[in-house]
Amino acid sequence: MEIKVLHQVMEWNQDVSRQVRQSLKEKQICLINIMGSPGAGKTCLITELIKRLREEFSIGVIEGDIAGQIDAERIASLNIPAVQLNTDGACHIEAMSIQHILPSFALDNLDVIFVENIGNLVCPAEFDIGENFRITVLSIPEGDDKIAKYPLMFTDTDCLVLNKYDMLPYFDFNEERAARDYRGVNPEAPLFCVSAKTGEGMDELVAHIARKIRQEIQKEELKG
Amino acid sequence: MEIKVLHQVMEWNQDVSRQVRQSLKEKQICLINIMGSPGAGKTCLITELIKRLREEFSIGVIEGDIAGQIDAERIASLNIPAVQLNTDGACHIEAMSIQHILPSFALDNLDVIFVENIGNLVCPAEFDIGENFRITVLSIPEGDDKIAKYPLMFTDTDCLVLNKYDMLPYFDFNEERAARDYRGVNPEAPLFCVSAKTGEGMDELVAHIARKIRQEIQKEELKG
Repeated sequence: MEIKVLHQVMEWNQDVSRQVRQSLKEKQICLINIMGSPGAGKTCLITELIKRLREEFSIGVIEGDIAGQIDAERIASLNIPAVQLNTDGACHIEAMSIQHILPSFALDNLDVIFVENIGNLVCPAEFDIGENFRITVLSIPEGDDKIAKYPLMFTDTDCLVLNKYDMLPYFDFNEERAARDYRGVNPEAPLFCVSAKTGEGMDELVAHIARKIRQEIQKEELKG
Repeated sequence: MEIKVLHQVMEWNQDVSRQVRQSLKEKQICLINIMGSPGAGKTCLITELIKRLREEFSIGVIEGDIAGQIDAERIASLNIPAVQLNTDGACHIEAMSIQHILPSFALDNLDVIFVENIGNLVCPAEFDIGENFRITVLSIPEGDDKIAKYPLMFTDTDCLVLNKYDMLPYFDFNEERAARDYRGVNPEAPLFCVSAKTGEGMDELVAHIARKIRQEIQKEELKG
């Protein structure tokens, strides 16, 4: 029963995500969907990415949360346009919400929109929101078994960020196991070990994301 | 659309959870539903609770995971009957699964069944699985803002365990804020600061849970 229901929602979501992707293509905007557990450090990572990418790109942020506007306030304090999307209980963001929110931004002036998805290692991975690429954030304190236990989130992603890497000495986290499990479900996408808090490893990640954004925007230019 | 669907699933779930609760009452078994984010330390907590409660109570465990049987193996290594429930993608456990699994245990010999729900701060809170009481586990590395951001998980619980308390010096976690937010959504239920790993704070938590189990079993005896 439940599977049939999800299927219906997802077919509908697929139509809308195509429309979102088309709108973004016309505006030459790269949408980046950032997913991970509650407390993986997604907002902190976005904050640090903004600081390092804002010279080259004009950035906006959609902050997804069940309730509250704590994260949108953190982003807005950087003078970055931010919209808080409250799902009022829903455990993931759907393309319909992105479609609804996009007109809130001055789209002609934007290059990149970061979407911070609901903190959840399960449901968000099932919903295409029209993104150009996905980043999954896993943090050291969560444990090295999460890839085996929540495979879809690590399979359907373009990049894995292993965050809070500075905490490695304090937790029983087997890096080799995590890397092996990741390669098992996702042989291609890169893995970055970073601490958004201390800055460790951020240069390589920022270089990768900047390159991806340029590719996406250039691709649109070539096509358009 | 989605809200209507959830409503249908949940009405169905409610019927089954009543049946589960009735079966457990007849067998004088206390079912404890343990919820929290991926990596909050639920399995470690259950392991440590088992070690401290097994002299007084006969214990079984249902390990819920999207995929794999890592956690059931950890429990089985303690010589405790454990069943791994794989949801194959679903983000929460429903009462139907518990109903299906219960006959796998020698129910006449059990006092307590711990259910480790899927690591998820959202969906599991919406589904009554027939439990006698709920424990929500939040860990220090997840951050002090999680109660404000995922309120239902902290509202609909009988007990909050703040785990990985030994990690407090390494994270920006404001205990007062977390306690205040918790009181705001749940004025009655207790809060325990523990480290399942080091054992800190476990005595108080174990005493509380043992008392609750005795109450539940005694209550059934008085009724039966």
